[in-house]
Amino acid sequence: MTDIHALPPTMGRLSLGKVGICGIRKPLVIQRPDRTHTLSAGFEVYVDLPALRKGSDLSRNAQVLAEVIDETVHRPVRSVEAACLDISRELLIRHPYAREAEVRVEAEYFRPRGIREDRVSLENFTLLGGAWARRTPSGTEVRQSVGAEAIGMTACPCAMETCRARLEEEFPALKDPAFRDLPIITHNQRNRSRLRLTLEEHTEVEADDLLDILEGAQSSPTYAILKRGDEGQVVLDAHRRPRFVEDVVRAILSLLVERLPRLPDATDVEVATRSEESIHKYDVRAEHRSTLGALRRELAS
Amino acid sequence: MTDIHALPPTMGRLSLGKVGICGIRKPLVIQRPDRTHTLSAGFEVYVDLPALRKGSDLSRNAQVLAEVIDETVHRPVRSVEAACLDISRELLIRHPYAREAEVRVEAEYFRPRGIREDRVSLENFTLLGGAWARRTPSGTEVRQSVGAEAIGMTACPCAMETCRARLEEEFPALKDPAFRDLPIITHNQRNRSRLRLTLEEHTEVEADDLLDILEGAQSSPTYAILKRGDEGQVVLDAHRRPRFVEDVVRAILSLLVERLPRLPDATDVEVATRSEESIHKYDVRAEHRSTLGALRRELAS
Amino acid sequence: MTDIHALPPTMGRLSLGKVGICGIRKPLVIQRPDRTHTLSAGFEVYVDLPALRKGSDLSRNAQVLAEVIDETVHRPVRSVEAACLDISRELLIRHPYAREAEVRVEAEYFRPRGIREDRVSLENFTLLGGAWARRTPSGTEVRQSVGAEAIGMTACPCAMETCRARLEEEFPALKDPAFRDLPIITHNQRNRSRLRLTLEEHTEVEADDLLDILEGAQSSPTYAILKRGDEGQVVLDAHRRPRFVEDVVRAILSLLVERLPRLPDATDVEVATRSEESIHKYDVRAEHRSTLGALRRELAS
Amino acid sequence: MTDIHALPPTMGRLSLGKVGICGIRKPLVIQRPDRTHTLSAGFEVYVDLPALRKGSDLSRNAQVLAEVIDETVHRPVRSVEAACLDISRELLIRHPYAREAEVRVEAEYFRPRGIREDRVSLENFTLLGGAWARRTPSGTEVRQSVGAEAIGMTACPCAMETCRARLEEEFPALKDPAFRDLPIITHNQRNRSRLRLTLEEHTEVEADDLLDILEGAQSSPTYAILKRGDEGQVVLDAHRRPRFVEDVVRAILSLLVERLPRLPDATDVEVATRSEESIHKYDVRAEHRSTLGALRRELAS
Repeated sequence: MTDIHALPPTMGRLSLGKVGICGIRKPLVIQRPDRTHTLSAGFEVYVDLPALRKGSDLSRNAQVLAEVIDETVHRPVRSVEAACLDISRELLIRHPYAREAEVRVEAEYFRPRGIREDRVSLENFTLLGGAWARRTPSGTEVRQSVGAEAIGMTACPCAMETCRARLEEEFPALKDPAFRDLPIITHNQRNRSRLRLTLEEHTEVEADDLLDILEGAQSSPTYAILKRGDEGQVVLDAHRRPRFVEDVVRAILSLLVERLPRLPDATDVEVATRSEESIHKYDVRAEHRSTLGALRRELAS
Repeated sequence: MTDIHALPPTMGRLSLGKVGICGIRKPLVIQRPDRTHTLSAGFEVYVDLPALRKGSDLSRNAQVLAEVIDETVHRPVRSVEAACLDISRELLIRHPYAREAEVRVEAEYFRPRGIREDRVSLENFTLLGGAWARRTPSGTEVRQSVGAEAIGMTACPCAMETCRARLEEEFPALKDPAFRDLPIITHNQRNRSRLRLTLEEHTEVEADDLLDILEGAQSSPTYAILKRGDEGQVVLDAHRRPRFVEDVVRAILSLLVERLPRLPDATDVEVATRSEESIHKYDVRAEHRSTLGALRRELAS
Repeated sequence: MTDIHALPPTMGRLSLGKVGICGIRKPLVIQRPDRTHTLSAGFEVYVDLPALRKGSDLSRNAQVLAEVIDETVHRPVRSVEAACLDISRELLIRHPYAREAEVRVEAEYFRPRGIREDRVSLENFTLLGGAWARRTPSGTEVRQSVGAEAIGMTACPCAMETCRARLEEEFPALKDPAFRDLPIITHNQRNRSRLRLTLEEHTEVEADDLLDILEGAQSSPTYAILKRGDEGQVVLDAHRRPRFVEDVVRAILSLLVERLPRLPDATDVEVATRSEESIHKYDVRAEHRSTLGALRRELAS
Repeated sequence: MTDIHALPPTMGRLSLGKVGICGIRKPLVIQRPDRTHTLSAGFEVYVDLPALRKGSDLSRNAQVLAEVIDETVHRPVRSVEAACLDISRELLIRHPYAREAEVRVEAEYFRPRGIREDRVSLENFTLLGGAWARRTPSGTEVRQSVGAEAIGMTACPCAMETCRARLEEEFPALKDPAFRDLPIITHNQRNRSRLRLTLEEHTEVEADDLLDILEGAQSSPTYAILKRGDEGQVVLDAHRRPRFVEDVVRAILSLLVERLPRLPDATDVEVATRSEESIHKYDVRAEHRSTLGALRRELAS
């Protein structure tokens, strides 16, 4: 029987950048310092295709994924990105005609969070992982990406000032210096922030550290369980740290530079944040791409 | 050639409640008092199926939809629900074996909104329409549904009181009666509210009236264009009208009873509201189903 | 400090059907005969609200959920619905003013599937659970729901006959009786089917049995790993079992009656199926709601 | 009152790549040769932010959008991308501190489609537009993007050959040369393909030409209205033109080179296609990015 995939292309001799499968779901078990986590994960798995071949053997992508990921149910891996690196390497072995392989994963991750010790519960975050393998004359080069997304809260510093001015007109006593630090009403809203680093293979980054950076950059983290007094605390915290999306991105980048000083300058950094504005029907968004080296230089200047 | 649909069923002689098509998109042109609106609409179109027939002739659903809806590009209809009524009646003609037909539509609707006259722009809302036709010994009975969804804002009355107590501790001067009406910080967020009425054919309901009810029930409407002073105004308005989701549903129901006094008691009423909480990763929701008659009695008691 | 929730309503003295939280995510660990499964689950948790109370104490919903669900990480429950029953009962204790409580959950579930033993991998399905608790003079009444969704494949029996007629014109030799069972081309597509049973507390239903019914009713199950020969097998299987969405619903109902004979007549049954038609931009859908008793009578008649 | 946005940044002196609004919805009216189209469109509008400024004046983005897009209700523009170009230029005027502006739009577009003249109805497609403006010493440089997405159908050439082999074993008479062109069963499914070109301002590209290329590259277009005979025709057409996702991308690229010979070599080309596999629970995807010049050279080699 003819191997249709190995035939020359019928629609034009063109090489293709990416061919693969996406939206394939798997349970992925990782071993973290605290405990074993079973993540529900969605994968994308691609290789490139040379101009002289009609098709890519896509069943191999599903098979490699099953071999590496299903196996984590019995033998957990140490991280999402470690699993991706294994897959990307194996893809180049199974697709001998390919020069590049790419794997991406987005996984739901639960960690214990609470505004007080007796309010702790498991809350949802997202882990992002990836790997790229590239066949070169001197062997296979790989890169990995480690990332995370956290939902938190932003309170707008601009509307706060406008409201302060309006309220001082209506309540002149507010101008008293005693009220200098009184938190003033503003709009606040759900914010989704994500950070992704792309770097060499043997550099380890803890996803939990990225999540801490993300939550530390928002006006306040959010929590599942908030009794009455706690709600007030979160609201106060957020209004004492009002932040634009611009502030959130800069805070993420600054915290990254400060807290992960050992990461190499060549690390690619992507940050995106989105505030689901309470006063608008649309969202406000900021993003930035750079390298850690460029960020360090800009912050030092 | 055999008409497969007309054969007896092969998998069990069972009548089925609904068979049809969904997710079919159309432009729908309606003529409103102010101007002609072209809506982007998604339809669901069903009939029931008797136990003795294998299949429903689904191409007729797409055809009726094309005949009625595509035609509105040339001859606009007066409302979303008027188009649904036409379709539901025609479905019973084209499916002689069916006893019931159902049509539902959800359409994006733009209306001019602004916090001031010179800030007016077109903002997005949703219109909901529907119709049910039923073959009876005395002819075809129909019912229609008219509904709408509006995005607005809620500010939480409970966190406001907690914050007031906290702030009065920190700033004792706030207890001065002069500050009785000072709006206090709280969490606020995007809210989506919807209202749907199901009623007899010849009762007309203006979707714009429903949208006004929805926006009137939230802590504040939201706007696309807000210059700095306007932002402050929206924030102030919302904080002077803090509302739980429970308040929003009750306000919608009360405004409905008050503003549409001519609607019959037999009108079915469905309200649902969802606040995308800024202090949580999850949403808060309230809903209620009743008849206008029952609501009138409960409010009068 | 005033308990705002306990105040009388400000927007109209109306009782509300449902108030609660939705979109809250949790890991849920269940103990099945084969192994322990960690599911990624989304919950909705509601109670009703009497006319004389302004708000529902929503933090209790999140707290009950944390107590019952987070605990499953250490002590797995036997099923999704068992967890829901516990939550629904506890809700009526924590909300003394409520008469009814409702919990719904939708969880991603991975089970080993393969067209052959050496092709087995973990594939994604959905489990649906629910519970309703109601305060009555004689104590608390509960009902539970057990459900599942499976993605499979349908091949259209009608287009197959049309194509047979067309091909017999072009290739008259096809009319030879030797080709009577030759599978003929038709359109085939991804199908999503779901089945939900609502019944008394102590009746156990295995979700895996429901998934088997769903996959048994489609033209063919689908698989993650299909080497070349396997692909042909799935295609052949599906074309030898062409099915309308109407056939799928009737097959689910018939298999349910046949395979679960001990379930009581009072069991509520909901089936819905959706084929993402390859020849259309829209989907085709069938659904039916009934009781097991009514289905048994209709099938026996 | 202090202009908070104009203050120096509080969280780190870092320039940011993109700050703006997204998910803002508008009706956009375009004048095409055939008729006036009202599209339901979603916009993203960004500018960059220098390191010395805390915030971007986002209300200006909403205002420019309202001025340019709302106005099309009265005075239609000639294309989606023409509107984007106007917005991108205006953004640089309103944000004097910005060096770059970006606008993206995705709009639902209905065009008459039918397998025969008496089956024509309005079917949904997507138009993609964009513009980038950049302040340079010699003035403002702009680029525009024009794109489209079409839903169609793919039939798998590989499973077809496997099935042919299997069927020839079971029905040896099929090996007769008379059956050489008999279309054989395979899996087929919904396919979504998109093509986007980025190029200089004054080069005009008709979005309808892009849609024709997309539909011409799939195994078959799909249609809303298909009576029984038509269904057979679509199935036959698709099975006579079986295509992998790899084939679809190459066909799009080849048709683009062939049909739009006047476009400059420097045109950036992005193609992506996704088949929602009927035999899998996941999708298969191919994509390619290149320039028209590189494609022309590769095809000519």
